[in-house]
Amino acid sequence: MDKEKAVGETAICSVGEGHGLRYRGYSIQELSQSANFEEVAYLLLYGDLPDRAQLYRFQQLFANSVILPQSIKAMLEMLPKTVHPMNILRTVCSLLGTVEPEYAVGAEPELAIRTIGVSITALAYWHHFHLTGKRLIASFKQQLIAEYVLTVLHQTTVDESWVWALNIALILYAEHEFNASTYAARVTVSTESDFYSGIVSAIGTLKGPLHGGANEAAMTLISAFKTPEAAKKGILKRLSNHEKIMGFGHRVYKNGDPRSPIIKSVAHQLTQRLGKTRLFDVAEAIEETMETEKQLKTNLDFYSAIVFHCLGIKTDFFTPIFVFSRITGWSAHIMEQRQHNRLIRPLAKYVGPKNRAFVPMNER
Amino acid sequence: MDKEKAVGETAICSVGEGHGLRYRGYSIQELSQSANFEEVAYLLLYGDLPDRAQLYRFQQLFANSVILPQSIKAMLEMLPKTVHPMNILRTVCSLLGTVEPEYAVGAEPELAIRTIGVSITALAYWHHFHLTGKRLIASFKQQLIAEYVLTVLHQTTVDESWVWALNIALILYAEHEFNASTYAARVTVSTESDFYSGIVSAIGTLKGPLHGGANEAAMTLISAFKTPEAAKKGILKRLSNHEKIMGFGHRVYKNGDPRSPIIKSVAHQLTQRLGKTRLFDVAEAIEETMETEKQLKTNLDFYSAIVFHCLGIKTDFFTPIFVFSRITGWSAHIMEQRQHNRLIRPLAKYVGPKNRAFVPMNER
Repeated sequence: MDKEKAVGETAICSVGEGHGLRYRGYSIQELSQSANFEEVAYLLLYGDLPDRAQLYRFQQLFANSVILPQSIKAMLEMLPKTVHPMNILRTVCSLLGTVEPEYAVGAEPELAIRTIGVSITALAYWHHFHLTGKRLIASFKQQLIAEYVLTVLHQTTVDESWVWALNIALILYAEHEFNASTYAARVTVSTESDFYSGIVSAIGTLKGPLHGGANEAAMTLISAFKTPEAAKKGILKRLSNHEKIMGFGHRVYKNGDPRSPIIKSVAHQLTQRLGKTRLFDVAEAIEETMETEKQLKTNLDFYSAIVFHCLGIKTDFFTPIFVFSRITGWSAHIMEQRQHNRLIRPLAKYVGPKNRAFVPMNER
Repeated sequence: MDKEKAVGETAICSVGEGHGLRYRGYSIQELSQSANFEEVAYLLLYGDLPDRAQLYRFQQLFANSVILPQSIKAMLEMLPKTVHPMNILRTVCSLLGTVEPEYAVGAEPELAIRTIGVSITALAYWHHFHLTGKRLIASFKQQLIAEYVLTVLHQTTVDESWVWALNIALILYAEHEFNASTYAARVTVSTESDFYSGIVSAIGTLKGPLHGGANEAAMTLISAFKTPEAAKKGILKRLSNHEKIMGFGHRVYKNGDPRSPIIKSVAHQLTQRLGKTRLFDVAEAIEETMETEKQLKTNLDFYSAIVFHCLGIKTDFFTPIFVFSRITGWSAHIMEQRQHNRLIRPLAKYVGPKNRAFVPMNER
């Protein structure tokens, strides 16, 4: 855990001092095996797993949340098709908070659900508008959120195994303590700023390749090799050039990311089913080379890249999928920060020039 | 300085262990007395005061920066006139980073100038479009940025004393070490995210009433009283109700904000000139009462509120003015964070429920 220190307390998630992961006390293994993403979202937002009535109410809220405000549709039509989807989501959520500002104390769970519904639907709307000119009319039909994501993006029904796989990935990505994007959201709302400002800060932070952007970088890496042999050779070469290999190592987990075996198993099953075993073999060759050469293990982003790829998701949509899920964790942290708020205003050690006397323009 | 610790180093600004303020070694007293805001902006962005040729180049860049992209104009026309201007600025800067993404390493100073020009002009464009239906055509005519802000907002020429006053306020607001908005920007770019994501996080963070929003709250407070006597009585009553009085105290300065005497003197001169001495007297009565009752001194936001008010600026435009100026400090910190980057990913102490076993839906 290096030089990092605990800068605050949380009751949302525990990383087990770098040896495990639990959301509100439930192990990530059990949740990913037995729950749906909506149950996990409910758990993070409300503190406990929902009963049937609570889950039904959650689904009703979600169904309403997929309707886009007119101003967001107009902006999406205006934006070029070539921009990065994370910039779209950052701007969409900022606009959402402008046209539908936070209205009441304690409404954060409902705002979170609204933000998830709008984010998914807005990305699909923008994508299909620029692909075919079609103006998507969103509707949520009593289905899992994982299924909604896939059907609204692909505009077709999808295999059950795809829904199963994405459901697990959404659960794994939902929450992770004081990671950079969550911490940015907490810093933002610590000034008593609004919910949406917190979410917008988090999206902009997640975008970076050292954080959410890592799954996109991992896919680019894996796609660069046609065979396991080429992968091993390529990685060795990159290492000798001191290039950074994305999808490996984690600030918190020094002995392996507990989410990695779960997503690797999903990637294995999906690639088998789809006849994409070579992709999996290439990834394993990279994994083995990194373990041998650098003693670094994969993190969640590495095999997630393969899972998303198998689900027909474009590489630059990987981090947006992460957003859809992590909005739950961010929102839980925004609520927690507000419950015991103290302005996050650290100090810096000054290392700049000593006192300088002002010099008028004529003498410069 | 309480429990805060230095979490990093900076060469941009020193708060003199809570007893002074210097930008890159120059005292805030000298800068606010002798410099123009553009020289201070240059100092923060490039490290040294500009010579004549460098300042000319800066002004040329600024002149180009006030031209709004078509998509931003379209969005501003679409947004209702009732939304909070800070939401507008957050969304405008997110959209700017979407349609004009960061294009090269080392371009941050130019992006900063572009962002200042767009922010000022976009706010004025939105304001006048909804006020009169007029589509503002921005142009910068070899003038001070302080003058541009006032003329583009008021759509008329203004008195020299107004330009003098706003110039000083812009200098005082330009930079302040690891305050919450700056720290949010640093957290965001520590993931290697882009310049605009950093600025957007900072704007959303500044918005809160415990940070930039304080000057708006101070104005609301001062406006509530017609006489110094009423002010004293009103403050005593609010204190006895344990209400928070905005514009007082500072996390870093325990013995007074070094910017306060400077802005108070500006407020005094402006109110004298404009025949608004009662406003100043009310403010002083509040100041004296807070000093006597709570031993708390004013911070920059308190008398800034009076200055902005005297300049004909609407109260909900106060924090946006802060943004125009602080973009310089934020940008300098984004550059500094990138120069010695390490992901900002703190840890949390877990205080939530102990291990819980998953319970299937039927048994909940």
